[in-house]
Amino acid sequence: VTGGRFKGKVKIVGAGLIGTSIGLALSKQGVSVYLEDLSPATQRLASEYGAGEEFFEGVNPDLVIVCVPPEVTARLVKAELQRHIQATVIDVSSVKSPILDELAAEGADLTRYLGTHPMAGRERGGAVSGRADIFIGRPWVIAINSECSVERVNDVEAMILDLGAQPIRMSAKEHDRAVALVSHVPQVVSSLLAARLVGASGVELAGQGLRDTTRIAASDPKLWVQILGANASEVEQVLVSFRDDLDTVIDALGNISGQGSLMALDRLIGNGNRGVEQLPGKHGSRKSDYQTFIVMIDDRPGELARLFAEVGEIGINIEDMKLEHSPGAQIGLVELSIAPKSADRLQAELLERGWRFAG
Amino acid sequence: VTGGRFKGKVKIVGAGLIGTSIGLALSKQGVSVYLEDLSPATQRLASEYGAGEEFFEGVNPDLVIVCVPPEVTARLVKAELQRHIQATVIDVSSVKSPILDELAAEGADLTRYLGTHPMAGRERGGAVSGRADIFIGRPWVIAINSECSVERVNDVEAMILDLGAQPIRMSAKEHDRAVALVSHVPQVVSSLLAARLVGASGVELAGQGLRDTTRIAASDPKLWVQILGANASEVEQVLVSFRDDLDTVIDALGNISGQGSLMALDRLIGNGNRGVEQLPGKHGSRKSDYQTFIVMIDDRPGELARLFAEVGEIGINIEDMKLEHSPGAQIGLVELSIAPKSADRLQAELLERGWRFAG
Repeated sequence: VTGGRFKGKVKIVGAGLIGTSIGLALSKQGVSVYLEDLSPATQRLASEYGAGEEFFEGVNPDLVIVCVPPEVTARLVKAELQRHIQATVIDVSSVKSPILDELAAEGADLTRYLGTHPMAGRERGGAVSGRADIFIGRPWVIAINSECSVERVNDVEAMILDLGAQPIRMSAKEHDRAVALVSHVPQVVSSLLAARLVGASGVELAGQGLRDTTRIAASDPKLWVQILGANASEVEQVLVSFRDDLDTVIDALGNISGQGSLMALDRLIGNGNRGVEQLPGKHGSRKSDYQTFIVMIDDRPGELARLFAEVGEIGINIEDMKLEHSPGAQIGLVELSIAPKSADRLQAELLERGWRFAG
Repeated sequence: VTGGRFKGKVKIVGAGLIGTSIGLALSKQGVSVYLEDLSPATQRLASEYGAGEEFFEGVNPDLVIVCVPPEVTARLVKAELQRHIQATVIDVSSVKSPILDELAAEGADLTRYLGTHPMAGRERGGAVSGRADIFIGRPWVIAINSECSVERVNDVEAMILDLGAQPIRMSAKEHDRAVALVSHVPQVVSSLLAARLVGASGVELAGQGLRDTTRIAASDPKLWVQILGANASEVEQVLVSFRDDLDTVIDALGNISGQGSLMALDRLIGNGNRGVEQLPGKHGSRKSDYQTFIVMIDDRPGELARLFAEVGEIGINIEDMKLEHSPGAQIGLVELSIAPKSADRLQAELLERGWRFAG
């Protein structure tokens, strides 16, 4: 028990991945957590995992965290506001405006409600996948609701900080627009790209580029249908602007010898260059803040260890790394990203120790 | 000098990244290599790097490798066929049908020509980026040309094997269709996705999914305009089918409460699941052949070394790895991909040694 900034009794409604993970993390901090789930078996399972006690009538929580699928969130938030008339009630669903709108329309007590969104999904769901540490270092959005009192907002923020996450305040609308851009549209685009491979020949020529662009296409359709459905209009807007650019590319390719076609392609790929530079890197810094180079290693146990042991001896931190695939070869390519001030020294010292570079 | 299967004198025309790399690799094998470049300075530079001797009149090569930009490839192949009337002439450009068509139309001697494509690009070009080992383990397409003699095809294949690459025979048309699918379309899609981020707010919420899908959007527009221009019709066809699916998504989102809209989204994301399963993994195996789990490490020098040293002691090979970003946190998440037969043992042994898992 380490003890955190947040003090109070917490009730968690819905013991899935997020609910269980919050319960585990808060319990570790010594907070009293009470779990409630529609399924008595799930409720008991999460409790046995250490995510909190099973909820019982008579408990008066200070904070209720509703962790259920988007489509039933507003209904359960409203019910909890009525059941616990002193408590702050928050939810964690991945789309914020529709829930706020529905609560307002139904006359729920918005002075005690706050929408939030931890950016900490995992590919596998359920209580058994819960971990206390999935929030560490991740953004956790607090959707500003001007009716909610400052004290309640500060309490929720304290709880988020206790879980190791980074609270970010923005409006529900801003949030929904942002996740459409950084999460929902990339999912659609990756899925549609991967769908092109079904029944296609020549896939054996695929390299790392296709692998990277289609990795998230392996995600669960059932979950994504709900998310896309809840944020339909924001996702649609971004996809329409994507399609405008796509139409330009298709027109240029269909008339490739025509005036301006190459310029159009150059402009769009150049915009992509500028877009990718906007991305935050590790620790909030930008990608372009790092230098990368590729070390070749024999593809057998112990070689990665030897590489990282020597990097450790040299005393330079690796900001990012990536193991490149070499289909058919017994060789691995390790791309290292290094802070510019240290990159030259690391490369020189590795070279001296006999490492070979490929990229 | 190790000596390879291929015997003969080689002339390389164009001392850029690929030409210089081939020259370095063949020279290492003891093959006599002669370099020619439009730029005398580039020609001499590549030679000084060890990629071969500078070409001079009187040399009679057995094999000429034309390594110049796509738009001038056919012209130079034809010229080399005429200059060296015994030699096999091959090219390495990334699109194959237009070159073969142009040579046929101009009456070039196709009995001595073979189009090839090493799938071994690097982000940086030029002689100074050349490395002997960039072909190791990569596919290298031989575009079948029925007029070329079996002996010449076998010689070229021997040279490809000497460079450590994996020769794959297919028709020029099949090649162009395959690279449209696995390389050119992913580039366009990634660029258009990244372009959405220009001037957008909320990018600080981005996670690993957006980072992966937009990584290749950092590629050079000048190079890609040429590649897309040369393979315009194949790329267009795949993009049109992408747009058909995109239209379906946009229609479904625009009428999300309408009959069938959720089913359409479910079907398209499900197709993405099936597509991504087609991808070859490392050593030609499929992605789904591996199990993954995420190890948490403190983000400081030496921690990765300690992890990989212990994995080495346990004696299990890592098939793939990925360092996840934790913006703002001093913690790193390392995703390891492991052959299923070893995954449980590795996880159990790491757990015993005190490592924590996150995902």
